Amino acid sequence: MFSPEKVDFSTISRALRSHLNHAEFQLAAGLLGGLHIAQTIEHLEALDATEAALAYRLLDKQTAVLVFQELDAPVQADLVRALQSQIVIDAFAQLPAAGRVALLDELPAMVATKLLAGLPTATRQETGILLGYPESSAGRAMSPDFISTHPQLSVAETLERISARLGNCENAQHILVIDDERRLLGTIKLSELLTEPAGTTIGELCTQSPVVQACEPETSAARVVVDRKAGMLPVLDREDRLLGVLTLPMAIAILEDAEERRSAYGSGTDPLFRPYLGTPLRHLVKARVIWLLVLAIGATLTVKVLSSFEQTLESMVVLSLFIPLIVGIGGNTGNQAATTVTRALAMGDVRGSDFWRVLMREVRIGAVLGLCLGAIALVVAGSIFELRIGLVIGISLVALCSIAAAVGGVMPIIGKFFKVDPAVFSNPFISTFVDAAGLIVYLSVAVLILG
Amino acid sequence: MFSPEKVDFSTISRALRSHLNHAEFQLAAGLLGGLHIAQTIEHLEALDATEAALAYRLLDKQTAVLVFQELDAPVQADLVRALQSQIVIDAFAQLPAAGRVALLDELPAMVATKLLAGLPTATRQETGILLGYPESSAGRAMSPDFISTHPQLSVAETLERISARLGNCENAQHILVIDDERRLLGTIKLSELLTEPAGTTIGELCTQSPVVQACEPETSAARVVVDRKAGMLPVLDREDRLLGVLTLPMAIAILEDAEERRSAYGSGTDPLFRPYLGTPLRHLVKARVIWLLVLAIGATLTVKVLSSFEQTLESMVVLSLFIPLIVGIGGNTGNQAATTVTRALAMGDVRGSDFWRVLMREVRIGAVLGLCLGAIALVVAGSIFELRIGLVIGISLVALCSIAAAVGGVMPIIGKFFKVDPAVFSNPFISTFVDAAGLIVYLSVAVLILG
Repeated sequence: MFSPEKVDFSTISRALRSHLNHAEFQLAAGLLGGLHIAQTIEHLEALDATEAALAYRLLDKQTAVLVFQELDAPVQADLVRALQSQIVIDAFAQLPAAGRVALLDELPAMVATKLLAGLPTATRQETGILLGYPESSAGRAMSPDFISTHPQLSVAETLERISARLGNCENAQHILVIDDERRLLGTIKLSELLTEPAGTTIGELCTQSPVVQACEPETSAARVVVDRKAGMLPVLDREDRLLGVLTLPMAIAILEDAEERRSAYGSGTDPLFRPYLGTPLRHLVKARVIWLLVLAIGATLTVKVLSSFEQTLESMVVLSLFIPLIVGIGGNTGNQAATTVTRALAMGDVRGSDFWRVLMREVRIGAVLGLCLGAIALVVAGSIFELRIGLVIGISLVALCSIAAAVGGVMPIIGKFFKVDPAVFSNPFISTFVDAAGLIVYLSVAVLILG
Repeated sequence: MFSPEKVDFSTISRALRSHLNHAEFQLAAGLLGGLHIAQTIEHLEALDATEAALAYRLLDKQTAVLVFQELDAPVQADLVRALQSQIVIDAFAQLPAAGRVALLDELPAMVATKLLAGLPTATRQETGILLGYPESSAGRAMSPDFISTHPQLSVAETLERISARLGNCENAQHILVIDDERRLLGTIKLSELLTEPAGTTIGELCTQSPVVQACEPETSAARVVVDRKAGMLPVLDREDRLLGVLTLPMAIAILEDAEERRSAYGSGTDPLFRPYLGTPLRHLVKARVIWLLVLAIGATLTVKVLSSFEQTLESMVVLSLFIPLIVGIGGNTGNQAATTVTRALAMGDVRGSDFWRVLMREVRIGAVLGLCLGAIALVVAGSIFELRIGLVIGISLVALCSIAAAVGGVMPIIGKFFKVDPAVFSNPFISTFVDAAGLIVYLSVAVLILG
């Protein structure tokens, strides 16, 4: 191991600079990891602004906190400005997402809020890369635009303190109460604050609020905001320090995007995220063609199944008349279950651990549905064609509906387990599977009964 | 015609009482319509509280305004209390919805707000019947829980006036500015109010706000609240008098219910509106079985189509191998279009008048998709089976995809035109139609090419 005390300053500085400029961030981080706080600061000061920002971002959180505190205010400001620069963002954006998460520790709360403050919303998502939170996490969606106060201040002092910000803050109706270490103590509504005696201290008034960790998925955080009618949700880092707030409009946007995705995937298209009539035709074709192709390839399975029963079909052509009916009922039963469970997952009503409960429910529902349809089919097809045909269709439907409902019900859960959007994993692909399974069931029953 | 001047008071009063007690509201309204204001008041005073409330509700709006103004404050309060009673609500709830709308004129804004104020949210929807607004209208979903002020008051006067209400009002962040006739002049944010000099008059500060008429559908009103990030939307009656506000949480709930419905109908089930795991099995079966049956009956169309081509199928069994593939691709193409357009309708991106634009777009998209899939099918099926089979499938797919996309695209618009939820009218039923159409196309092309 190299020992920084023994190596002279300029050698390390040269190496550090070279690593940073060649995007060898792992090596740079290793080099920085061997330094004391004082040495780190010395090196940061020797680097140019962009290099210093890159180097700073590679520090572990503990060190980053201590280093930032030691810097003079103007140097702090320079550092934050350099962190906001496109060059620094791009440098880390180029890393693969997994590598980035492994390399970049959480940014200290005080730096993170400074970094986000004043940035337009559009660039905030991109800057989120620097914060070290995964894509589609609450930390990426949060806003630094909130009003805070301290628990030992009085109502009057708070009103004076915040009055300048009230006019231009989007989220002025909730005031966050934080201690000197940015730990959240609670929240208080602006409207409630106005009804309290001027001398009361904030600490007595604020109430606990639901919170979310920055690394949690944005959709579940958005659900909390919308379901609790909370107006906003404080976003905290791993040390429970306040980073920002997830606002209600942002939460709605997140859920609507998720819904757009669910609805599109559920019918086998890519989501558009823009007005239909304003979308060029080629985009609409592009959003659909790959899905159609993949589904068509999946559907060749049905050709395979049918060709293995070609003899049966040849000896009894009447069987082929019911193929679309059987396949259709199976597909519908599967889609019903898949849509219900996909939505239940999105609403948080069903979790991954409910796999067996969902499976057992859907098998039973499918069996009941199959019995209803099968009984009718037995009577109708039995009287129009012949009893044996009615029997084949009736029995097939009982088996098929149970299978289809079960598969449809658990596929979204399986999708979620593999971190694939449950909607992608469900309706269209269930149809493919259920179509083939339905044909196997139908023609096997036919072979059994008709010989 | 009877002339009230000539008939003595007690005769009319007896007739009125009898009509009211026998729920002959049309007759009672006719009787009341022939009276002068002073006579009406006299008769209302002679009736018991419930009868008076029933009679009052049958007055036309103009008369109702004048009558209410003439009553003493305690009598007004008694009347409002009687209007809130379950007996009165039930009496009108029993009328068929269409008859009710024809019979009940809009309630005057000042009575409507008094009627709603203080009622718990749960009973508000039911009381909405009395307001005379159609089901699922903004007037039924609005809340009377808002804070208002007058334009000639100063900031300080307004703050003093509203301070008592700030603590217990859910929607305290927006203050509505109304004139003495309850006409909305604009809104101002509480947080902005606090930053203004105490002496400024409200009239100079308030800004225009989007508004909604009470009779407009709740979903489009909810869209405005959510899209404009407005926080709330003032609800006005036909004379532009303020009735209440549609709050953001309410707007979200409305859109989520609409989404639940869209997602359920789109996959052929009834919406659940409750957690999946908490729903008894028989409810889940009930939500699905009718749809499955209707769809299965629709699918017998495919049996009909196929039996008319039985000879063709008999002479070339290989054709039957591709039935599920053809049917599946058609269904998928139709569903893609239907889902995209259904969502676009819900988001307000597409309107009924866009019928032809959507039709032309979807025909072209379908043709392109059909050409892609058809070309591949031609090559693959042509090489594995024989060229003629490939040709049949390829040509069928071009025609089918165009039809399916076009039908899928316009069905939701047709549904909306007939005031059926576009989602109900789309995916499942499109499949039924497209399945049958696909088989006709496929087997007709086969007859043409294979002879």
